[in-house]
Amino acid sequence: MMSEPGMISFGGGNPATEAFPSKEIRAISDNLLAEEPGQVLQYSLTEGYPALREQGKKYLNRNFDIVKEQDTVIVTTGSQQVMDLLGKIICNEGDVIATENPAFMGALNAFRSYGAKLVGIDMEPDGVNLAQLEAVLSAPQKPKVFYTIPNFQNPTGITTSLEKRQAVYELCAKYGVLILEDDPYGALRISGSPIAPIKSFDTAGIVMHASSFSKVLAPGMRLAMCAGPSELMAKMALAKQVSDVHTTLWSQRVCERFLALHDMEKHLERVSGIYRKKANLMISEFERLMGGRIKFNRPEGGMFVWVTLPDNIDTAEFVRRCLEKKLMLVPGNAFTVDENAKVQSVRTNFSTPTEEQIKAGAQIMASVLDELS
Amino acid sequence: MMSEPGMISFGGGNPATEAFPSKEIRAISDNLLAEEPGQVLQYSLTEGYPALREQGKKYLNRNFDIVKEQDTVIVTTGSQQVMDLLGKIICNEGDVIATENPAFMGALNAFRSYGAKLVGIDMEPDGVNLAQLEAVLSAPQKPKVFYTIPNFQNPTGITTSLEKRQAVYELCAKYGVLILEDDPYGALRISGSPIAPIKSFDTAGIVMHASSFSKVLAPGMRLAMCAGPSELMAKMALAKQVSDVHTTLWSQRVCERFLALHDMEKHLERVSGIYRKKANLMISEFERLMGGRIKFNRPEGGMFVWVTLPDNIDTAEFVRRCLEKKLMLVPGNAFTVDENAKVQSVRTNFSTPTEEQIKAGAQIMASVLDELS
Repeated sequence: MMSEPGMISFGGGNPATEAFPSKEIRAISDNLLAEEPGQVLQYSLTEGYPALREQGKKYLNRNFDIVKEQDTVIVTTGSQQVMDLLGKIICNEGDVIATENPAFMGALNAFRSYGAKLVGIDMEPDGVNLAQLEAVLSAPQKPKVFYTIPNFQNPTGITTSLEKRQAVYELCAKYGVLILEDDPYGALRISGSPIAPIKSFDTAGIVMHASSFSKVLAPGMRLAMCAGPSELMAKMALAKQVSDVHTTLWSQRVCERFLALHDMEKHLERVSGIYRKKANLMISEFERLMGGRIKFNRPEGGMFVWVTLPDNIDTAEFVRRCLEKKLMLVPGNAFTVDENAKVQSVRTNFSTPTEEQIKAGAQIMASVLDELS
Repeated sequence: MMSEPGMISFGGGNPATEAFPSKEIRAISDNLLAEEPGQVLQYSLTEGYPALREQGKKYLNRNFDIVKEQDTVIVTTGSQQVMDLLGKIICNEGDVIATENPAFMGALNAFRSYGAKLVGIDMEPDGVNLAQLEAVLSAPQKPKVFYTIPNFQNPTGITTSLEKRQAVYELCAKYGVLILEDDPYGALRISGSPIAPIKSFDTAGIVMHASSFSKVLAPGMRLAMCAGPSELMAKMALAKQVSDVHTTLWSQRVCERFLALHDMEKHLERVSGIYRKKANLMISEFERLMGGRIKFNRPEGGMFVWVTLPDNIDTAEFVRRCLEKKLMLVPGNAFTVDENAKVQSVRTNFSTPTEEQIKAGAQIMASVLDELS
């Protein structure tokens, strides 16, 4: 539908193309292909290009102690592959996987593809409901893993507080349940201060941390990293070997040089600046046009605002009417464990649309709200 | 082990780096990143970059009618991903998968990772044993798929004859069993004439055809294609979406331009020329140094010679002694369905080593043969 002329999308999750460090990528790639094409274009190691794994470790540990002495980092083909490989190594038909609810649909679908029974835990403004989490962790059928996005969650934009991160870790450690901490957006903070990732508390070896270069550099490169206890990561690597042998070496080599040659803090500031501006615009337009009628949070980063419609509005109808006026939105139940659940919210993305499109899209939402009220 | 100084490898399956069209890749990539970086580095479609799927279809159909009207082509992250996705969509724990035996270990391991029970069918000089194949296809537990590499098979180098390809197709059609025709090497023919792929006979919609750009362009780009009946390919795409979302767009864009701008026949002639020279050298050295003592075929393409040792030689000991003298070989049982089978052969690769290494490696094999005789 995106190819229709005039279509505005608040529906996707694409990074802004103006955020890509295209010139730097072009220069690095050209140098590498001139100097050692045979080493850029050849087969490589399943775990990832060794120098990128080293640079990636430094990058991950820039603020917090994420990758510990006893951990291993592997490179994956996007962080989607982390969910897939984890499903492959731990999940048998009928196994329970606990997840924040709503949550990133790509992760839910990856787990579903291995026959997992998903059990959702409600989100609160500061992270999951801990009582629900404990009930799920202590149930007779213990979950194989708890899936969480603590920073600027997709789709809700919620950031889990430090206290709740610690509580989540303690609970999972108590019940011996693996945590998959998915952090594709952590480096894209637009307000507030970084909060320690759950992985940084891990002394029990129960946390796997997935990060991604898709939002930080460029998604077309298909690069992500997974850090975790070495024994578990060896199983992930075995699973990766039969999945795609290794991740595109060319992208890995360019990423390694980018990390080695460029000031990442400066780069991340520039990218966050682009998103800060867009997020602020979306929020101020929502406030101006629909304030008091819809509810929404002010995410501290990431790419999404979670908009809750008035109770008398039918979400599916709202999305349908917006689409008629050429605005794409994703209805909230696309992200829920029970896809038939009645969800009063829609996810709006601010990273992809231009400023003009953000304004026009907000106008469309307001006019549909008028129509249906 | 490959990083040890002086080590020669007949063990791997890397294409020759001198076969990569590095200059062309560099020029195309640089142009694309200069002109439309946002369209090269952004997220893309799971099925693959549309223009590459079109160019790829033309490329696949250059000699034979492989991709038919009712078929769909998708781009995958190497052809390894085809095995993985097929396993994901058709294989439940305990399902039977029939395969040539020996066969490419990456495929066997992908199927094993989904809990498949592999049933091997012996290879003869012109392809599988048809009586065995029929017995397996007609067994009470019908196989979900029959896996075959008809051109210059890995590891045996055997090319399945036209008659046998037709017979294999007829048998699988009769019993309603899907064929996965894996063709990573087909474009790298060094003698003889191209033989129609099994996919080209398919009127029943029971053949999936996997090809790869790893040996034709460069493996570090991680590009392959899978062609098959559209309904089946839609399932493959769904499985791919949860596996890695899509294949590196950058590589796809460069590959598309390469196919559009360059004379593929000429390029393939150049690459085949490199392999012809290496294969002929390996075979003449084997003949000169061990003729009459070992048995080996003269592959019409691909990357491998299958060497059968005299009956009194222990294969594992032969491989171990060669390694002591710094020559890596893969023992035949790495490729058999029963990994504990006694296999009297080793696989030797001629694409990776230089001409000097081919000569030196053949000398090592001959000296170990002397020692053990």
